[in-house]
Amino acid sequence: MPPKGNALIGQSGGPTIVINGSLVGAVEAAHKRDEIQTFYGALNGISGILNEQMIDLFREDSDTIARLKTTPSAGLGTCRLKPKTPDLERCMEVFKAHNIRYFFYNGGNDSQLTCHLISELAKGSDWDMQVVGIPKTIDNDLVVTDNCPGFGSAARYAASCVQFAAKDAEAFGAIEVVEVMGRHAGWLTAATQVGRVDDYMAPHLVYVPEVEVNPDEFLADCRSCYDEYGYLVVAVSEGFSFAESSLGTTSQKVDEFGHARLGGVAEALGEMIEEELGVRARTDRLGNLQRCFAFATSQVDLDEAYAVGADAVNRACEGETDIMVTIQRKSSEPFVFETETTSLMSVADETRLVPLDWLNERKNGVTEEFVEYARPLLQGYEGPLPAALPSFPRLRKSMAEPKLGEYVRPK
Amino acid sequence: MPPKGNALIGQSGGPTIVINGSLVGAVEAAHKRDEIQTFYGALNGISGILNEQMIDLFREDSDTIARLKTTPSAGLGTCRLKPKTPDLERCMEVFKAHNIRYFFYNGGNDSQLTCHLISELAKGSDWDMQVVGIPKTIDNDLVVTDNCPGFGSAARYAASCVQFAAKDAEAFGAIEVVEVMGRHAGWLTAATQVGRVDDYMAPHLVYVPEVEVNPDEFLADCRSCYDEYGYLVVAVSEGFSFAESSLGTTSQKVDEFGHARLGGVAEALGEMIEEELGVRARTDRLGNLQRCFAFATSQVDLDEAYAVGADAVNRACEGETDIMVTIQRKSSEPFVFETETTSLMSVADETRLVPLDWLNERKNGVTEEFVEYARPLLQGYEGPLPAALPSFPRLRKSMAEPKLGEYVRPK
Repeated sequence: MPPKGNALIGQSGGPTIVINGSLVGAVEAAHKRDEIQTFYGALNGISGILNEQMIDLFREDSDTIARLKTTPSAGLGTCRLKPKTPDLERCMEVFKAHNIRYFFYNGGNDSQLTCHLISELAKGSDWDMQVVGIPKTIDNDLVVTDNCPGFGSAARYAASCVQFAAKDAEAFGAIEVVEVMGRHAGWLTAATQVGRVDDYMAPHLVYVPEVEVNPDEFLADCRSCYDEYGYLVVAVSEGFSFAESSLGTTSQKVDEFGHARLGGVAEALGEMIEEELGVRARTDRLGNLQRCFAFATSQVDLDEAYAVGADAVNRACEGETDIMVTIQRKSSEPFVFETETTSLMSVADETRLVPLDWLNERKNGVTEEFVEYARPLLQGYEGPLPAALPSFPRLRKSMAEPKLGEYVRPK
Repeated sequence: MPPKGNALIGQSGGPTIVINGSLVGAVEAAHKRDEIQTFYGALNGISGILNEQMIDLFREDSDTIARLKTTPSAGLGTCRLKPKTPDLERCMEVFKAHNIRYFFYNGGNDSQLTCHLISELAKGSDWDMQVVGIPKTIDNDLVVTDNCPGFGSAARYAASCVQFAAKDAEAFGAIEVVEVMGRHAGWLTAATQVGRVDDYMAPHLVYVPEVEVNPDEFLADCRSCYDEYGYLVVAVSEGFSFAESSLGTTSQKVDEFGHARLGGVAEALGEMIEEELGVRARTDRLGNLQRCFAFATSQVDLDEAYAVGADAVNRACEGETDIMVTIQRKSSEPFVFETETTSLMSVADETRLVPLDWLNERKNGVTEEFVEYARPLLQGYEGPLPAALPSFPRLRKSMAEPKLGEYVRPK
């Protein structure tokens, strides 16, 4: 059994609607474990560890912790820092100085790599510490796990937006291009098709970054759908690209798509469709709200997030280490899952793309198999919505006393 | 008393989250009135009248009608057509051909003008017809009425988005610029401040089109808020503009704001703040979802929309004409309203701007008086949210038989 000591948790990368669900799951599990004396939260992920900015989560009110569960975005703050070797060594110093025997890091594949490197360093330095990764990403691109906490709610938001925007487009007989997050993996964009329960409904066309699109087929499909339904809604990943070399006359635009900063694809495609079809095309970029629009919380997603947080703590206390908690689906209808684990190395820096055989033949939509996979993950939140505007608890942030000198990151 | 006959209703301009609430209010009231024999809905507003594309609303299932009440966007379709004299004359022909004795048009100030012109034409041609305007606009810029159905829900969506996006910005210690609809009137943008119930909360700065902003003050205020709160959220109307001639070095940008197509202000401001403060600025444009994101329905707004629809029918049946139904506030907490009327001429083509004395001295936020006005209009929807993704009823659309020849609009 691992020694008694303190625990530390950090949140990393892009926040999600339910990431605080994992934090609360971990805190509530830790309260019940004798092995954990003080449970610290690192402010802004690794950055807070390096600078010893850690708060005592056991000193937060239980009411604050309970409300935090449904507060979107990272309550501890987050960062996008990729630690280098001196950073990791500094982390070890901090762990030792604060008697951190349990370390939990909640993030995507980058963060699981960080977790693994820390685990290796601990083993190499004889510091008896359990290191457990907690999965999180709206992109749903972690391998091994059935799905990633954070995805279901973002997908519910994106899919709902598409349904709502479709009503607006339909009322005008207009074209609407909706841009969904996803640079390499198209899970979120693909999931918007779950809402299309009848042919006339949106999204009529779905494009994911896994496929390079033929521009002529793209325009032909837009025209054909518009002619058939009297309006057109296209859902497109921000990582959309055209196959090179086709579409001679608009090659400049094509280049733009391939190399543009993310977040302009919908407008470029909208202009192109408008020009070709002679019908007004509007665009909506779903943007940062995909990570935080809590009215679209998925209950399954929230349950999963809580479970992986709690399970990480319990497994660490039972001596498991160098693992990430995963979701194993037991049944889709009703949705039943269990938590399992996988080695950190198996997920670190790996990316799970949408399998090509879950896309239709024309690669402009998904198969029924995909819909059956995704549908249960997008179920609505069972709790009541507030009549007032959203408001959130504020952490007391009782800071740990620094024990080391200031840290300056090497260039 | 007006003669028995048929009624016709049309929806016009930008849809709203609750515009179908007015339609359902009108249909349900009409069912109880002996004066109305058939109740037609014009497809795509005036455009449907010109082309005799009208559906029999009494032949829709009562279940469809009930579900339509909470279906966002214009269920009959909408248009942005500004009728010219020959169009209005054609409308009269259609009214006579279909024995339309009651005409209801649901829209903003443009549509109320259309309504008035039709009313005048009817009077001049001895066609005994009651014409009643039903107010609708997310912009809240109709005069006389306390507020406009459509505004409360759009404001609830915008204000919620700002609160959610603020959590995401706070987690990164980042800057966020949220672009809200509003070319001339800043009601929607201003209403986002209702969510700021504590100083550290967002939006820290609010800019409406009623005020030309001094660029130096703008940047100074951004810096000061960022320094104070460690993150910064700015809500800005798409009609934002800088006062001319200041900010020498970035005058090109200034020109852009003043004359750009709507929908680029947030990005331009974001770049400018990022450059000045050296902190990452992200942007979100709330876009078309402000007109249709039904998870943000305001109960007060839905009640108002229903009431003005029902009241329009009842008043017309009692012989009132050439009026628009208005909302009169009786109390703010709890919110109590009654419907009243005003002449169509009093609202046609008039625009109500945010009064300057409801803005703070620095013109970068609103006063408590504004907040007290707006707060009750943003109350949440009392009904349950669906666990599944949004889905909506489909109208049967039993078409009226055309009685006139084809109509070709004059150039």
